Amino acid sequence: MKKPIIAISREFGSGGRMIGESVAKKLGLTVYDKTLIEMVAEKGGYSADFVEENDQRLTKSLLFQIAVTGSLPPWLAKDAGAAEGLIGKSVFSAQSEVIKDLAEKCGCVIIGRCAGHILKDDPNCLSVFIGAETEDKIDRCVKEYGFTPAAAAGEIKRRDSERAEHYNHHTGKMWGNAANYHICLNSSVFGIGGCVDLIVEAYNKLVSNK
Amino acid sequence: MKKPIIAISREFGSGGRMIGESVAKKLGLTVYDKTLIEMVAEKGGYSADFVEENDQRLTKSLLFQIAVTGSLPPWLAKDAGAAEGLIGKSVFSAQSEVIKDLAEKCGCVIIGRCAGHILKDDPNCLSVFIGAETEDKIDRCVKEYGFTPAAAAGEIKRRDSERAEHYNHHTGKMWGNAANYHICLNSSVFGIGGCVDLIVEAYNKLVSNK
Repeated sequence: MKKPIIAISREFGSGGRMIGESVAKKLGLTVYDKTLIEMVAEKGGYSADFVEENDQRLTKSLLFQIAVTGSLPPWLAKDAGAAEGLIGKSVFSAQSEVIKDLAEKCGCVIIGRCAGHILKDDPNCLSVFIGAETEDKIDRCVKEYGFTPAAAAGEIKRRDSERAEHYNHHTGKMWGNAANYHICLNSSVFGIGGCVDLIVEAYNKLVSNK
Repeated sequence: MKKPIIAISREFGSGGRMIGESVAKKLGLTVYDKTLIEMVAEKGGYSADFVEENDQRLTKSLLFQIAVTGSLPPWLAKDAGAAEGLIGKSVFSAQSEVIKDLAEKCGCVIIGRCAGHILKDDPNCLSVFIGAETEDKIDRCVKEYGFTPAAAAGEIKRRDSERAEHYNHHTGKMWGNAANYHICLNSSVFGIGGCVDLIVEAYNKLVSNK
């Protein structure tokens, strides 16, 4: 039997990463996120730093700028080799290939990277969205990442807006809209452990409903 | 211990009503939907037929028309008594009172009526959204409601757009956005029985996480 693939999309500070790691531990799976970026870097021929810096910034406005002006923005122009690769084969499509390869070869939990959309036709992939109440997200950012409460609120807004723009641009769908995921959970309501149990149970239902 | 309140919002044809009825049966709760409308009618002084015909139509555009022209649209003008009641106390706020009364007095499953939003501060209320793949919704409408496939597709679009407009207008939030519910499930992925089990399990997690 093919092993589970759990694709987790999440609001910043919702505990989605922690939930993903616990689900992976419970089901004996590997977690991919930054590691995945490094694999993409290797596959696409970019440096890991370049990909990490730019993969969330490949928005419509950037591509529009390149198309209309024929010139590259300063942050991209300094790396001509990478820019050439970008035009020939985008970071996103290189990532998509790595994600599809992974899903073919092994069971895994993939955090972010539009994996739920990329694997939407894989009958073994459960697509999850994790959100939380604002005060809990701020609280988590203060405790875990060392932000002040005011800075945390700003960072949550900035990161979620970046994630939404990236998702909406690459998928043509709306980030956080229930129709684009199999199960969406509010971690403030169920707790981290509660979400983990519900995701494992949901995966079992997905398999038994096929 | 206070009994569960399960508020279910759903796409037309997703099986949300059936899921709500099974959850109610499993937890020994009463289901409210049309019955609720009759209670509202009684409480608000409108006829049940009037409320049923108009409660989804009380949109911004209607209220705008009344405000700007000072006159009532033809479908409303024929019932002057009801129109007077509408201006004094909207159908929606009468429904909200009934829903809060119910949640205070007994455990129940409430289908539609923005109940999840109205009861958002009730710690015993689980707010659920049920969606499904388009082909499954069409299939259900054909089998259960006797539509042709083409008519079913149109009806799904019309009903969901009506529901979204009603919800967005009264709550100031977006219908179907994961952030507005505690758990969202795709019934095509988990099946009707799978969704019922996951909702019951989610309610148990909500209680144990308090």
